[in-house]
Amino acid sequence: MPERRLQEVRRHLEKARLDALVVSHLPHVRYLSGFSGSNGLCVISLSRQSVFTDNRYRDQIRDEVEGFRIHVARAGLFEAAQKSGILKGVRRAGFEAQYVSFSAFRNLKRLFPELSLVPTRGIVEGVAAIKDDGEIESIRRAVAITDSVFSRILRILKPGIREMDVAAEIGYWHKKLGADGDGFEPIVASGVRGALPHARPTMRKIVKGEFVTIDLGCRVCGYHSDLTRTVAVGQPGKKARTIYRIVLEAQCKAIDAARAGVKSRFLDGLARRHIRRSGFGPYFSHSLGHGLGIEIHEPLRLSALSRDVLNAGNVVTVEPGIYIPGFGGVRIEDDILIREHNCEVLNKAPKELLIV
Amino acid sequence: MPERRLQEVRRHLEKARLDALVVSHLPHVRYLSGFSGSNGLCVISLSRQSVFTDNRYRDQIRDEVEGFRIHVARAGLFEAAQKSGILKGVRRAGFEAQYVSFSAFRNLKRLFPELSLVPTRGIVEGVAAIKDDGEIESIRRAVAITDSVFSRILRILKPGIREMDVAAEIGYWHKKLGADGDGFEPIVASGVRGALPHARPTMRKIVKGEFVTIDLGCRVCGYHSDLTRTVAVGQPGKKARTIYRIVLEAQCKAIDAARAGVKSRFLDGLARRHIRRSGFGPYFSHSLGHGLGIEIHEPLRLSALSRDVLNAGNVVTVEPGIYIPGFGGVRIEDDILIREHNCEVLNKAPKELLIV
Repeated sequence: MPERRLQEVRRHLEKARLDALVVSHLPHVRYLSGFSGSNGLCVISLSRQSVFTDNRYRDQIRDEVEGFRIHVARAGLFEAAQKSGILKGVRRAGFEAQYVSFSAFRNLKRLFPELSLVPTRGIVEGVAAIKDDGEIESIRRAVAITDSVFSRILRILKPGIREMDVAAEIGYWHKKLGADGDGFEPIVASGVRGALPHARPTMRKIVKGEFVTIDLGCRVCGYHSDLTRTVAVGQPGKKARTIYRIVLEAQCKAIDAARAGVKSRFLDGLARRHIRRSGFGPYFSHSLGHGLGIEIHEPLRLSALSRDVLNAGNVVTVEPGIYIPGFGGVRIEDDILIREHNCEVLNKAPKELLIV
Repeated sequence: MPERRLQEVRRHLEKARLDALVVSHLPHVRYLSGFSGSNGLCVISLSRQSVFTDNRYRDQIRDEVEGFRIHVARAGLFEAAQKSGILKGVRRAGFEAQYVSFSAFRNLKRLFPELSLVPTRGIVEGVAAIKDDGEIESIRRAVAITDSVFSRILRILKPGIREMDVAAEIGYWHKKLGADGDGFEPIVASGVRGALPHARPTMRKIVKGEFVTIDLGCRVCGYHSDLTRTVAVGQPGKKARTIYRIVLEAQCKAIDAARAGVKSRFLDGLARRHIRRSGFGPYFSHSLGHGLGIEIHEPLRLSALSRDVLNAGNVVTVEPGIYIPGFGGVRIEDDILIREHNCEVLNKAPKELLIV
């Protein structure tokens, strides 16, 4: 794994006067060490780094990890960390307070009675917000697969097909085209159900003339894609067309202004103002976007309340929507890579109103 | 939701001298209240019960929940619980220590400074271990769908197909046949990879004469199925046939003895002894089975170290295996319902050695 990640974590540790960090959240274990098994733990001290797993992953961890001391535990991973001595002499160790359960915290305290355990928040997340070339390459691959899946979905969308049929095809093609699988349960929301931003696919059949909002993404090497398009199945009405145009304009305004140094709430405001001035303000009920990478939702937020400033190397979604109860909805979402003077839209899926 | 569940939880509370239980683990929220959204919280006091969610699920929660006071929160759910007053006058409240993060615990403590917060473990799990008729019906539906998916997989298994192709078909058919989706990432392990009990599907092509171990399951109304079969793609060798026979015999021995009142470690011992006496003892490297229901792995364990005793209404898996590094492996798994004097094997998928 790139040395930069450990260096950055240690810089944060020194700033917080910590001697070590206990990392148990699996996407973070993978990010720091490369180990992708379902049971893992990293301990990063100022001078050393160890990774722990159980016997099931004995071979896999040796294949995946370089630059860490590797421990294959017989019992619990915290117990193995204690035996390994990596925290010997350490006074203050941070732990990821959002991801460590109260039980696990008590176990840590019992095993390391002399250690001062300090709850931390956002250390690895902060480092992971800036993507390196290898990470961007993985995201590009995930995005390309999802774009390709979307183009296949367009070929099968027609009146009478059930939302769940579309969801089944999405999962199928993500795997067939080389992803590890869906990155999240896809959303397929047709007709009036399009007014629900987080609709789960149902057995409802799509009716001619309806909009269908499809939100899909996959995982490649642990990195996510996230794409939403709203498609018309048959000729849509005038109001639906108007809403589509407004959402697309709002999305393009935000994308056009995205670059390093911009406050993320400024981008949210650009899209939101456009929708408000078009008369649909109350119907854009969520934030503009979120960070994307080792998690489908990373902490970077494009919202009215966010204090985040965009940096080169951030990857975020831009996904305004209009949701009208009893009528339906439109959402258009792309993944963008923030650069010094602009951004790159990673998706290639078409954005003009598609009528199938 | 069946009143029995709340009564049982309250019986546990009284035994532990608790005045209330804070339930934040989502499968437990669904089990107790019926609410299936992605953000939920239940608070059960000795006389009242409330359920909390956010504005996205305003309509859904009213459709799904009966017999609870419903609260739609504008901010955090713990904050809403505090405002609702449901814990007013309560002195000692339990929380699910395995599922509440250290951050969430601190938030609870801040919001309820006068409350004595008591870590609990296994209260809802204990109640949920005994399935009622409605739950068994959901598990039956999930099992039947998975059996049907397996029969479709048999039709496509052939030399040259990739493990990931099989995984893609599994997810596809689970959704097409009416499940909410896969209950877990399916395992498809061909040839020597069969020696890895938890192999993730890869792009490896299945070769003629190999065994393929397929472990699949789905979710229906929140309830899981879990099925493993090992299938021969072309005529297998003599050693492979022997291993298959031994695993099947071990599984049948355990199933034949399963009934209420039996210690689960006795069943594990029956299967393990048969495999050991056949000369493959070191190659059965995991426990015999686990509870199944609202979670794919419920706490009931069929293992050598378990102290559990089976009760009528438990649903558990029985899944012995033999895994030989460099050679391959066999696992055969069924879901069984424990009854007073015997058990019912819920799966109908054939168990004789299938050669496709």
